[in-house]
Amino acid sequence: MHFITQIKVCFSDIDNAGIVYYPRFLHYFHLAKEEFFANALGIDYADVLYKKKVTFPSVHVECDFKQKLRYGDKIDMEVSVINIGNTSITWGYRGFRPGGTTDLIVHGLNITVCVVPDTFKKIEVPEWLRQGLSKHMRKE
Amino acid sequence: MHFITQIKVCFSDIDNAGIVYYPRFLHYFHLAKEEFFANALGIDYADVLYKKKVTFPSVHVECDFKQKLRYGDKIDMEVSVINIGNTSITWGYRGFRPGGTTDLIVHGLNITVCVVPDTFKKIEVPEWLRQGLSKHMRKE
Amino acid sequence: MHFITQIKVCFSDIDNAGIVYYPRFLHYFHLAKEEFFANALGIDYADVLYKKKVTFPSVHVECDFKQKLRYGDKIDMEVSVINIGNTSITWGYRGFRPGGTTDLIVHGLNITVCVVPDTFKKIEVPEWLRQGLSKHMRKE
Amino acid sequence: MHFITQIKVCFSDIDNAGIVYYPRFLHYFHLAKEEFFANALGIDYADVLYKKKVTFPSVHVECDFKQKLRYGDKIDMEVSVINIGNTSITWGYRGFRPGGTTDLIVHGLNITVCVVPDTFKKIEVPEWLRQGLSKHMRKE
Repeated sequence: MHFITQIKVCFSDIDNAGIVYYPRFLHYFHLAKEEFFANALGIDYADVLYKKKVTFPSVHVECDFKQKLRYGDKIDMEVSVINIGNTSITWGYRGFRPGGTTDLIVHGLNITVCVVPDTFKKIEVPEWLRQGLSKHMRKE
Repeated sequence: MHFITQIKVCFSDIDNAGIVYYPRFLHYFHLAKEEFFANALGIDYADVLYKKKVTFPSVHVECDFKQKLRYGDKIDMEVSVINIGNTSITWGYRGFRPGGTTDLIVHGLNITVCVVPDTFKKIEVPEWLRQGLSKHMRKE
Repeated sequence: MHFITQIKVCFSDIDNAGIVYYPRFLHYFHLAKEEFFANALGIDYADVLYKKKVTFPSVHVECDFKQKLRYGDKIDMEVSVINIGNTSITWGYRGFRPGGTTDLIVHGLNITVCVVPDTFKKIEVPEWLRQGLSKHMRKE
Repeated sequence: MHFITQIKVCFSDIDNAGIVYYPRFLHYFHLAKEEFFANALGIDYADVLYKKKVTFPSVHVECDFKQKLRYGDKIDMEVSVINIGNTSITWGYRGFRPGGTTDLIVHGLNITVCVVPDTFKKIEVPEWLRQGLSKHMRKE
Protein backbone atom coordinates (compact mmCIF):
# COMPACT_ATOMS: atom_id res chain seq x y z
CA MET A 1 0.00 0.00 0.00
CA HIS A 2 1.35 3.36 -0.99
CA PHE A 3 0.96 6.45 1.10
CA ILE A 4 -2.01 8.59 0.07
CA THR A 5 -3.12 11.95 1.45
CA GLN A 6 -6.15 13.91 0.38
CA ILE A 7 -5.84 17.50 -0.75
CA LYS A 8 -8.80 19.81 -1.18
CA VAL A 9 -8.59 22.31 -4.01
CA CYS A 10 -8.72 25.73 -2.41
CA PHE A 11 -10.43 28.83 -3.73
CA SER A 12 -7.18 30.49 -4.71
CA ASP A 13 -5.71 27.46 -6.49
CA ILE A 14 -8.01 28.28 -9.41
CA ASP A 15 -6.64 30.46 -12.19
CA ASN A 16 -8.28 32.69 -14.74
CA ALA A 17 -9.22 29.68 -16.88
CA GLY A 18 -11.37 28.38 -14.01
CA ILE A 19 -9.20 25.35 -13.28
CA VAL A 20 -6.31 24.56 -10.95
CA TYR A 21 -3.28 26.58 -12.09
CA TYR A 22 -0.87 23.94 -13.31
CA PRO A 23 2.12 24.89 -11.13
CA ARG A 24 -0.15 24.28 -8.13
CA PHE A 25 0.03 20.55 -8.88
CA LEU A 26 3.74 20.72 -8.15
CA HIS A 27 2.81 22.45 -4.91
CA TYR A 28 0.40 19.57 -4.21
CA PHE A 29 3.35 17.20 -4.72
CA HIS A 30 5.25 19.10 -2.07
CA LEU A 31 2.31 19.24 0.33
CA ALA A 32 1.90 15.49 -0.10
CA LYS A 33 5.60 14.95 0.59
CA GLU A 34 5.31 16.98 3.80
CA GLU A 35 2.45 14.69 4.89
CA PHE A 36 4.41 11.62 3.81
CA PHE A 37 7.25 12.53 6.17
CA ALA A 38 4.92 13.22 9.09
CA ASN A 39 2.66 10.21 8.60
CA ALA A 40 4.57 7.54 6.68
CA LEU A 41 8.09 8.15 7.99
CA GLY A 42 6.99 9.40 11.41
CA ILE A 43 9.09 12.53 11.44
CA ASP A 44 7.84 16.04 10.86
CA TYR A 45 9.35 17.62 7.75
CA ALA A 46 10.39 20.62 9.85
CA ASP A 47 12.37 18.29 12.12
CA VAL A 48 14.13 16.78 9.10
CA LEU A 49 15.34 20.26 8.37
CA TYR A 50 16.04 21.52 11.86
CA LYS A 51 17.08 18.36 13.70
CA LYS A 52 18.29 15.98 11.02
CA LYS A 53 19.93 18.85 9.14
CA VAL A 54 19.00 17.79 5.64
CA THR A 55 16.98 19.51 2.96
CA PHE A 56 15.98 18.47 -0.57
CA PRO A 57 16.42 20.92 -3.43
CA SER A 58 14.94 19.74 -6.73
CA VAL A 59 17.09 19.00 -9.74
CA HIS A 60 14.36 17.66 -12.01
CA VAL A 61 10.60 17.44 -12.18
CA GLU A 62 8.23 16.07 -14.79
CA CYS A 63 4.51 15.83 -14.75
CA ASP A 64 1.62 14.71 -16.94
CA PHE A 65 -1.78 16.26 -16.51
CA LYS A 66 -4.60 13.88 -17.41
CA GLN A 67 -7.62 15.79 -16.14
CA LYS A 68 -8.33 19.29 -15.00
CA LEU A 69 -9.44 20.04 -11.46
CA ARG A 70 -12.07 22.58 -10.49
CA TYR A 71 -13.04 24.23 -7.26
CA GLY A 72 -14.96 21.77 -5.11
CA ASP A 73 -12.74 18.88 -6.21
CA LYS A 74 -10.46 16.81 -4.02
CA ILE A 75 -7.43 14.84 -5.07
CA ASP A 76 -5.90 11.77 -3.46
CA MET A 77 -2.15 12.33 -3.75
CA GLU A 78 -0.03 9.20 -3.61
CA VAL A 79 3.63 9.47 -2.69
CA SER A 80 6.11 6.69 -3.39
CA VAL A 81 9.83 6.30 -3.94
CA ILE A 82 11.07 5.38 -7.40
CA ASN A 83 14.78 5.37 -6.76
CA ILE A 84 17.27 6.02 -3.97
CA GLY A 85 20.65 7.04 -5.33
CA ASN A 86 23.83 7.92 -3.56
CA THR A 87 22.82 11.51 -2.86
CA SER A 88 19.53 11.71 -4.74
CA ILE A 89 15.97 10.51 -4.24
CA THR A 90 13.42 10.09 -7.03
CA TRP A 91 9.91 10.66 -5.71
CA GLY A 92 6.86 9.37 -7.56
CA TYR A 93 3.53 11.16 -7.40
CA ARG A 94 0.13 10.14 -8.63
CA GLY A 95 -3.11 12.01 -8.04
CA PHE A 96 -6.45 10.24 -8.22
CA ARG A 97 -10.12 11.16 -7.95
CA PRO A 98 -11.07 10.07 -4.41
CA GLY A 99 -12.50 6.58 -4.08
CA GLY A 100 -9.78 4.41 -5.52
CA THR A 101 -6.63 4.50 -7.60
CA THR A 102 -8.09 4.12 -11.05
CA ASP A 103 -9.17 7.61 -12.04
CA LEU A 104 -5.83 9.29 -12.62
CA ILE A 105 -5.69 13.11 -12.60
CA VAL A 106 -1.97 13.76 -12.63
CA HIS A 107 1.27 11.82 -12.32
CA GLY A 108 4.88 12.85 -12.14
CA LEU A 109 8.26 12.43 -10.59
CA ASN A 110 10.68 14.70 -8.84
CA ILE A 111 14.40 14.15 -8.31
CA THR A 112 15.88 15.84 -5.28
CA VAL A 113 19.38 15.81 -3.83
CA CYS A 114 20.25 15.74 -0.15
CA VAL A 115 22.08 18.82 1.09
CA VAL A 116 22.95 20.47 4.38
CA PRO A 117 20.44 23.32 4.97
CA ASP A 118 22.87 26.19 5.56
CA THR A 119 25.67 25.41 3.13
CA PHE A 120 23.73 23.47 0.48
CA LYS A 121 26.69 21.05 0.49
CA LYS A 122 25.63 17.75 -1.08
CA ILE A 123 25.51 14.75 1.27
CA GLU A 124 24.67 11.07 0.96
CA VAL A 125 21.10 10.01 1.65
CA PRO A 126 21.21 9.53 5.45
CA GLU A 127 20.85 5.93 6.62
CA TRP A 128 17.72 6.57 8.73
CA LEU A 129 16.04 8.05 5.66
CA ARG A 130 17.22 5.32 3.29
CA GLN A 131 15.70 2.73 5.59
CA GLY A 132 12.45 4.60 5.95
CA LEU A 133 12.11 5.23 2.23
CA SER A 134 12.95 1.65 1.28
CA LYS A 135 9.55 0.58 2.68
CA HIS A 136 7.81 2.87 0.23
CA MET A 137 9.43 1.87 -3.07
CA ARG A 138 6.97 1.94 -5.93
CA LYS A 139 5.91 -1.53 -7.07
CA GLU A 140 4.29 -1.53 -10.44
CA MET B 1 4.89 63.31 -5.92
CA HIS B 2 4.43 59.94 -4.34
CA PHE B 3 6.16 56.82 -5.53
CA ILE B 4 4.05 54.74 -7.92
CA THR B 5 4.84 51.39 -9.51
CA GLN B 6 2.64 49.51 -11.94
CA ILE B 7 1.64 45.92 -11.27
CA LYS B 8 0.06 43.69 -13.90
CA VAL B 9 -2.52 41.22 -12.64
CA CYS B 10 -1.16 37.78 -13.42
CA PHE B 11 -3.09 34.73 -14.54
CA SER B 12 -2.80 33.01 -11.19
CA ASP B 13 -3.83 36.05 -9.11
CA ILE B 14 -7.41 35.31 -10.15
CA ASP B 15 -9.51 33.15 -7.85
CA ASN B 16 -12.53 30.99 -8.42
CA ALA B 17 -14.82 34.04 -8.45
CA GLY B 18 -12.95 35.33 -11.50
CA ILE B 19 -11.39 38.33 -9.73
CA VAL B 20 -8.12 39.02 -7.94
CA TYR B 21 -8.06 36.96 -4.73
CA TYR B 22 -8.22 39.58 -2.00
CA PRO B 23 -5.09 38.51 -0.07
CA ARG B 24 -3.18 39.12 -3.31
CA PHE B 25 -3.71 42.86 -2.80
CA LEU B 26 -1.63 42.62 0.36
CA HIS B 27 0.98 40.85 -1.76
CA TYR B 28 0.77 43.77 -4.22
CA PHE B 29 1.46 46.08 -1.26
CA HIS B 30 4.59 44.11 -0.53
CA LEU B 31 5.71 44.00 -4.17
CA ALA B 32 5.24 47.78 -4.35
CA LYS B 33 7.27 48.22 -1.16
CA GLU B 34 10.10 46.15 -2.67
CA GLU B 35 10.06 48.49 -5.71
CA PHE B 36 9.86 51.52 -3.42
CA PHE B 37 13.10 50.52 -1.71
CA ALA B 38 14.91 49.85 -4.98
CA ASN B 39 13.65 52.90 -6.85
CA ALA B 40 12.66 55.56 -4.32
CA LEU B 41 15.18 54.86 -1.57
CA GLY B 42 17.89 53.59 -3.89
CA ILE B 43 18.65 50.40 -2.00
CA ASP B 44 17.58 46.94 -2.99
CA TYR B 45 15.25 45.37 -0.44
CA ALA B 46 17.52 42.33 -0.31
CA ASP B 47 20.42 44.59 0.69
CA VAL B 48 18.32 46.11 3.47
CA LEU B 49 18.05 42.61 4.83
CA TYR B 50 21.52 41.30 4.14
CA LYS B 51 23.69 44.41 4.45
CA LYS B 52 21.70 46.81 6.62
CA LYS B 53 20.50 43.92 8.81
CA VAL B 54 16.94 45.05 9.30
CA THR B 55 13.66 43.39 8.42
CA PHE B 56 10.06 44.52 8.85
CA PRO B 57 7.53 42.09 10.30
CA SER B 58 3.94 43.34 10.20
CA VAL B 59 1.98 44.08 13.34
CA HIS B 60 -1.12 45.51 11.69
CA VAL B 61 -2.70 45.81 8.28
CA GLU B 62 -5.98 47.26 7.09
CA CYS B 63 -7.35 47.58 3.65
CA ASP B 64 -10.46 48.79 1.81
CA PHE B 65 -11.36 47.28 -1.52
CA LYS B 66 -13.21 49.73 -3.75
CA GLN B 67 -13.23 47.88 -7.06
CA LYS B 68 -12.52 44.38 -8.20
CA LEU B 69 -9.69 43.61 -10.59
CA ARG B 70 -9.85 41.13 -13.43
CA TYR B 71 -7.25 39.43 -15.56
CA GLY B 72 -5.94 41.90 -18.11
CA ASP B 73 -6.05 44.78 -15.61
CA LYS B 74 -3.12 46.76 -14.30
CA ILE B 75 -2.90 48.68 -11.06
CA ASP B 76 -0.76 51.69 -10.22
CA MET B 77 0.37 51.04 -6.66
CA GLU B 78 1.37 54.13 -4.70
CA VAL B 79 3.60 53.77 -1.66
CA SER B 80 3.95 56.53 0.93
CA VAL B 81 4.85 56.84 4.59
CA ILE B 82 2.13 57.78 7.06
CA ASN B 83 4.14 57.71 10.26
CA ILE B 84 7.64 56.98 11.50
CA GLY B 85 7.64 55.93 15.14
CA ASN B 86 10.48 54.95 17.38
CA THR B 87 10.67 51.37 16.16
CA SER B 88 7.68 51.27 13.81
CA ILE B 89 6.81 52.51 10.34
CA THR B 90 3.29 53.02 9.03
CA TRP B 91 3.16 52.51 5.27
CA GLY B 92 0.33 53.89 3.17
CA TYR B 93 -0.81 52.14 0.01
CA ARG B 94 -3.23 53.27 -2.67
CA GLY B 95 -3.94 51.44 -5.90
CA PHE B 96 -5.35 53.29 -8.92
CA ARG B 97 -6.51 52.46 -12.41
CA PRO B 98 -3.57 53.50 -14.61
CA GLY B 99 -3.71 57.02 -16.01
CA GLY B 100 -4.00 59.16 -12.91
CA THR B 101 -4.74 59.04 -9.21
CA THR B 102 -8.48 59.48 -9.25
CA ASP B 103 -9.87 56.05 -9.92
CA LEU B 104 -9.17 54.29 -6.64
CA ILE B 105 -9.17 50.48 -6.57
CA VAL B 106 -7.80 49.76 -3.13
CA HIS B 107 -6.24 51.61 -0.23
CA GLY B 108 -4.74 50.52 3.03
CA LEU B 109 -2.02 50.85 5.58
CA ASN B 110 0.48 48.50 7.13
CA ILE B 111 2.39 48.96 10.37
CA THR B 112 5.72 47.20 10.57
CA VAL B 113 8.38 47.15 13.28
CA CYS B 114 12.11 47.14 12.67
CA VAL B 115 13.89 44.02 13.85
CA VAL B 116 17.24 42.30 13.40
CA PRO B 117 16.77 39.49 10.82
CA ASP B 118 18.20 36.57 12.82
CA THR B 119 17.01 37.32 16.32
CA PHE B 120 13.85 39.33 15.55
CA LYS B 121 15.02 41.71 18.32
CA LYS B 122 13.25 45.05 17.97
CA ILE B 123 15.45 48.01 17.03
CA GLU B 124 14.92 51.71 16.41
CA VAL B 125 14.23 52.84 12.86
CA PRO B 126 17.78 53.27 11.52
CA GLU B 127 18.82 56.85 10.80
CA TRP B 128 19.55 56.23 7.08
CA LEU B 129 16.06 54.84 6.69
CA ARG B 130 14.36 57.57 8.72
CA GLN B 131 15.97 60.17 6.48
CA GLY B 132 15.04 58.35 3.29
CA LEU B 133 11.46 57.78 4.38
CA SER B 134 10.96 61.37 5.56
CA LYS B 135 10.98 62.48 1.91
CA HIS B 136 8.00 60.26 1.18
CA MET B 137 5.60 61.26 3.95
CA ARG B 138 2.01 61.29 2.77
CA LYS B 139 0.62 64.81 2.33
CA GLU B 140 -3.12 64.88 2.15
CA MET C 1 -18.28 27.22 21.16
CA HIS C 2 -16.87 28.85 18.10
CA PHE C 3 -15.80 26.98 15.03
CA ILE C 4 -12.07 26.18 14.97
CA THR C 5 -10.05 24.49 12.24
CA GLN C 6 -6.37 23.69 12.38
CA ILE C 7 -4.02 24.87 9.65
CA LYS C 8 -0.48 23.59 9.26
CA VAL C 9 2.08 26.10 8.04
CA CYS C 10 3.38 24.78 4.75
CA PHE C 11 6.91 24.96 3.42
CA SER C 12 6.07 27.65 0.90
CA ASP C 13 4.16 29.88 3.32
CA ILE C 14 7.52 30.99 4.67
CA ASP C 15 9.10 34.10 3.20
CA ASN C 16 12.66 35.32 2.97
CA ALA C 17 12.56 36.50 6.58
CA GLY C 18 12.00 32.90 7.68
CA ILE C 19 8.46 33.46 8.94
CA VAL C 20 4.97 33.15 7.49
CA TYR C 21 4.55 35.85 4.81
CA TYR C 22 1.97 38.15 6.30
CA PRO C 23 -0.54 38.09 3.40
CA ARG C 24 -0.69 34.32 3.95
CA PHE C 25 -2.60 34.96 7.19
CA LEU C 26 -5.39 36.47 5.10
CA HIS C 27 -5.24 33.31 3.01
CA TYR C 28 -5.54 31.30 6.26
CA PHE C 29 -8.67 33.35 7.03
CA HIS C 30 -10.11 32.29 3.70
CA LEU C 31 -9.12 28.64 4.12
CA ALA C 32 -10.77 28.67 7.54
CA LYS C 33 -13.92 30.20 6.06
CA GLU C 34 -14.04 27.44 3.45
CA GLU C 35 -13.87 24.87 6.27
CA PHE C 36 -16.46 26.82 8.26
CA PHE C 37 -18.97 26.51 5.43
CA ALA C 38 -18.33 22.79 4.95
CA ASN C 39 -18.25 21.85 8.62
CA ALA C 40 -20.21 24.45 10.58
CA LEU C 41 -22.87 25.38 8.03
CA GLY C 42 -22.97 21.98 6.37
CA ILE C 43 -22.63 23.22 2.81
CA ASP C 44 -19.54 23.05 0.69
CA TYR C 45 -18.25 26.50 -0.25
CA ALA C 46 -18.22 25.43 -3.91
CA ASP C 47 -21.94 24.64 -3.66
CA VAL C 48 -22.61 28.08 -2.19
CA LEU C 49 -21.14 29.45 -5.38
CA TYR C 50 -22.51 27.00 -7.90
CA LYS C 51 -25.86 26.01 -6.40
CA LYS C 52 -26.81 28.84 -4.07
CA LYS C 53 -25.42 31.40 -6.55
CA VAL C 54 -23.78 33.72 -4.09
CA THR C 55 -20.20 34.82 -3.68
CA PHE C 56 -18.51 37.13 -1.18
CA PRO C 57 -16.10 39.79 -2.45
CA SER C 58 -14.25 41.64 0.31
CA VAL C 59 -14.76 45.32 0.95
CA HIS C 60 -12.62 45.61 4.06
CA VAL C 61 -10.09 43.62 6.03
CA GLU C 62 -8.06 44.39 9.11
CA CYS C 63 -5.66 42.24 11.00
CA ASP C 64 -3.31 42.38 13.98
CA PHE C 65 -0.30 40.12 14.09
CA LYS C 66 0.70 39.22 17.65
CA GLN C 67 3.26 36.49 17.05
CA LYS C 68 5.20 35.23 14.12
CA LEU C 69 4.77 31.70 12.81
CA ARG C 70 7.57 29.46 11.61
CA TYR C 71 7.69 26.29 9.59
CA GLY C 72 6.63 23.38 11.77
CA ASP C 73 3.97 25.48 13.51
CA LYS C 74 0.24 24.92 13.45
CA ILE C 75 -2.47 27.47 14.03
CA ASP C 76 -6.00 26.95 15.31
CA MET C 77 -8.11 29.33 13.23
CA GLU C 78 -11.40 30.35 14.78
CA VAL C 79 -14.18 31.68 12.58
CA SER C 80 -17.12 33.60 13.97
CA VAL C 81 -19.64 36.17 12.77
CA ILE C 82 -19.42 39.70 14.13
CA ASN C 83 -22.26 41.29 12.22
CA ILE C 84 -24.90 40.42 9.63
CA GLY C 85 -26.00 43.48 7.70
CA ASN C 86 -28.49 43.84 4.90
CA THR C 87 -26.09 42.77 2.19
CA SER C 88 -22.85 42.45 4.17
CA ILE C 89 -21.32 39.99 6.60
CA THR C 90 -18.54 40.82 9.06
CA TRP C 91 -16.43 37.76 9.74
CA GLY C 92 -14.23 37.51 12.82
CA TYR C 93 -11.00 35.53 12.80
CA ARG C 94 -8.69 34.59 15.63
CA GLY C 95 -5.69 32.32 15.37
CA PHE C 96 -4.31 30.52 18.42
CA ARG C 97 -1.41 28.25 19.25
CA PRO C 98 -2.98 24.77 19.38
CA GLY C 99 -4.16 23.61 22.79
CA GLY C 100 -6.58 26.31 23.83
CA THR C 101 -7.73 29.81 23.03
CA THR C 102 -5.37 31.81 25.17
CA ASP C 103 -2.20 32.08 23.13
CA LEU C 104 -3.26 34.49 20.40
CA ILE C 105 -1.21 34.62 17.19
CA VAL C 106 -3.37 36.77 14.96
CA HIS C 107 -6.82 38.31 14.97
CA GLY C 108 -8.80 40.24 12.42
CA LEU C 109 -12.06 40.87 10.69
CA ASN C 110 -13.23 40.84 7.12
CA ILE C 111 -16.32 42.52 5.68
CA THR C 112 -17.77 40.90 2.60
CA VAL C 113 -20.85 41.70 0.54
CA CYS C 114 -23.15 39.15 -1.03
CA VAL C 115 -23.23 39.24 -4.82
CA VAL C 116 -24.40 37.07 -7.70
CA PRO C 117 -21.33 35.22 -9.10
CA ASP C 118 -21.65 36.16 -12.76
CA THR C 119 -22.87 39.74 -12.57
CA PHE C 120 -21.44 40.78 -9.19
CA LYS C 121 -24.84 42.40 -8.55
CA LYS C 122 -25.26 43.02 -4.82
CA ILE C 123 -27.97 40.96 -3.10
CA GLU C 124 -29.35 40.64 0.41
CA VAL C 125 -27.82 38.04 2.70
CA PRO C 126 -29.91 34.96 1.77
CA GLU C 127 -32.24 33.71 4.48
CA TRP C 128 -30.69 30.21 4.67
CA LEU C 129 -27.31 31.83 5.26
CA ARG C 130 -28.57 34.39 7.78
CA GLN C 131 -30.06 31.57 9.83
CA GLY C 132 -26.92 29.48 9.64
CA LEU C 133 -24.64 32.36 10.54
CA SER C 134 -26.81 33.54 13.42
CA LYS C 135 -25.73 30.45 15.38
CA HIS C 136 -22.11 31.53 15.12
CA MET C 137 -22.28 35.13 16.31
CA ARG C 138 -19.24 36.09 18.34
CA LYS C 139 -19.99 36.38 22.06
CA GLU C 140 -17.34 38.23 23.95
CA MET D 1 16.97 36.19 -31.22
CA HIS D 2 14.67 34.54 -28.76
CA PHE D 3 12.27 36.43 -26.59
CA ILE D 4 13.63 37.15 -23.12
CA THR D 5 11.92 38.85 -20.17
CA GLN D 6 13.46 39.56 -16.82
CA ILE D 7 11.80 38.38 -13.63
CA LYS D 8 12.80 39.60 -10.19
CA VAL D 9 12.60 37.05 -7.40
CA CYS D 10 10.07 38.38 -4.93
CA PHE D 11 10.18 38.15 -1.16
CA SER D 12 7.48 35.52 -1.01
CA ASP D 13 8.95 33.29 -3.73
CA ILE D 14 11.45 32.10 -1.14
CA ASP D 15 10.62 28.97 0.84
CA ASN D 16 11.71 27.68 4.19
CA ALA D 17 15.02 26.46 2.73
CA GLY D 18 15.87 30.07 1.84
CA ILE D 19 15.70 29.55 -1.94
CA VAL D 20 13.04 29.95 -4.60
CA TYR D 21 10.35 27.31 -4.02
CA TYR D 22 10.69 25.01 -7.01
CA PRO D 23 7.07 25.18 -8.22
CA ARG D 24 7.60 28.94 -8.52
CA PHE D 25 9.85 28.30 -11.51
CA LEU D 26 6.84 26.88 -13.32
CA HIS D 27 5.03 30.05 -12.36
CA TYR D 28 7.95 32.03 -13.84
CA PHE D 29 7.43 30.04 -17.05
CA HIS D 30 3.84 31.18 -17.11
CA LEU D 31 4.68 34.79 -16.30
CA ALA D 32 7.22 34.74 -19.13
CA LYS D 33 4.62 33.30 -21.50
CA GLU D 34 2.20 36.10 -20.58
CA GLU D 35 4.94 38.62 -21.47
CA PHE D 36 5.76 36.69 -24.64
CA PHE D 37 2.19 37.10 -25.88
CA ALA D 38 2.06 40.80 -25.05
CA ASN D 39 5.52 41.70 -26.36
CA ALA D 40 6.54 39.11 -28.95
CA LEU D 41 3.16 38.27 -30.45
CA GLY D 42 1.63 41.68 -29.86
CA ILE D 43 -1.55 40.50 -28.23
CA ASP D 44 -2.33 40.64 -24.56
CA TYR D 45 -2.80 37.18 -23.05
CA ALA D 46 -6.13 38.31 -21.63
CA ASP D 47 -7.30 39.16 -25.14
CA VAL D 48 -6.28 35.72 -26.37
CA LEU D 49 -8.68 34.36 -23.83
CA TYR D 50 -11.49 36.88 -24.11
CA LYS D 51 -11.35 37.91 -27.76
CA LYS D 52 -9.63 35.06 -29.55
CA LYS D 53 -11.45 32.51 -27.37
CA VAL D 54 -8.59 30.12 -26.82
CA THR D 55 -6.88 28.95 -23.66
CA PHE D 56 -3.96 26.57 -23.09
CA PRO D 57 -4.27 23.89 -20.43
CA SER D 58 -1.06 21.96 -19.77
CA VAL D 59 -0.74 18.28 -20.55
CA HIS D 60 2.94 17.90 -19.76
CA VAL D 61 5.76 19.81 -18.13
CA GLU D 62 9.37 18.95 -17.42
CA CYS D 63 12.06 21.03 -15.90
CA ASP D 64 15.71 20.80 -14.86
CA PHE D 65 17.01 22.99 -12.08
CA LYS D 66 20.69 23.83 -12.50
CA GLN D 67 21.15 26.50 -9.86
CA LYS D 68 19.20 27.77 -6.92
CA LEU D 69 17.91 31.33 -6.77
CA ARG D 70 17.92 33.51 -3.70
CA TYR D 71 16.16 36.72 -2.78
CA GLY D 72 17.82 39.63 -4.55
CA ASP D 73 18.40 37.56 -7.71
CA LYS D 74 16.92 38.19 -11.12
CA ILE D 75 16.37 35.68 -13.89
CA ASP D 76 16.24 36.26 -17.63
CA MET D 77 13.47 33.96 -18.83
CA GLU D 78 13.64 32.98 -22.48
CA VAL D 79 10.50 31.74 -24.23
CA SER D 80 10.64 29.87 -27.52
CA VAL D 81 8.53 27.37 -29.42
CA ILE D 82 9.80 23.82 -29.78
CA ASN D 83 6.92 22.32 -31.71
CA ILE D 84 3.55 23.28 -33.14
CA GLY D 85 1.28 20.26 -33.51
CA ASN D 86 -2.24 20.01 -34.73
CA THR D 87 -3.84 21.06 -31.46
CA SER D 88 -0.78 21.26 -29.23
CA ILE D 89 2.10 23.66 -28.70
CA THR D 90 5.41 22.75 -27.06
CA TRP D 91 6.92 25.75 -25.32
CA GLY D 92 10.59 25.92 -24.44
CA TYR D 93 11.85 27.82 -21.43
CA ARG D 94 15.36 28.68 -20.35
CA GLY D 95 16.29 30.90 -17.44
CA PHE D 96 19.69 32.60 -17.29
CA ARG D 97 21.60 34.81 -14.90
CA PRO D 98 21.19 38.31 -16.35
CA GLY D 99 23.92 39.47 -18.72
CA GLY D 100 23.93 36.79 -21.39
CA THR D 101 22.66 33.33 -22.19
CA THR D 102 25.49 31.24 -20.83
CA ASP D 103 24.80 30.94 -17.14
CA LEU D 104 21.83 28.60 -17.12
CA ILE D 105 19.63 28.47 -14.00
CA VAL D 106 16.69 26.40 -15.20
CA HIS D 107 15.37 24.93 -18.42
CA GLY D 108 12.23 23.09 -19.31
CA LEU D 109 9.39 22.54 -21.68
CA ASN D 110 5.64 22.65 -21.41
CA ILE D 111 3.10 21.06 -23.75
CA THR D 112 -0.27 22.74 -23.90
CA VAL D 113 -3.36 22.03 -25.97
CA CYS D 114 -5.64 24.64 -27.47
CA VAL D 115 -9.17 24.61 -26.11
CA VAL D 116 -12.22 26.85 -26.07
CA PRO D 117 -12.32 28.65 -22.68
CA ASP D 118 -15.85 27.76 -21.59
CA THR D 119 -16.22 24.22 -22.84
CA PHE D 120 -12.56 23.10 -22.82
CA LYS D 121 -13.30 21.54 -26.23
CA LYS D 122 -10.03 20.88 -28.04
CA ILE D 123 -9.41 22.97 -31.18
CA GLU D 124 -6.66 23.26 -33.78
CA VAL D 125 -3.94 25.80 -33.20
CA PRO D 126 -5.52 28.93 -34.72
CA GLU D 127 -3.88 30.20 -37.90
CA TRP D 128 -3.02 33.66 -36.48
CA LEU D 129 -1.23 31.97 -33.61
CA ARG D 130 0.54 29.40 -35.76
CA GLN D 131 1.94 32.21 -37.88
CA GLY D 132 3.01 34.26 -34.89
CA LEU D 133 4.63 31.31 -33.16
CA SER D 134 6.48 30.13 -36.27
CA LYS D 135 8.77 33.17 -35.96
CA HIS D 136 9.86 32.03 -32.53
CA MET D 137 10.83 28.41 -33.18
CA ARG D 138 13.84 27.35 -31.15
CA LYS D 139 17.00 27.01 -33.25
CA GLU D 140 19.69 25.05 -31.52
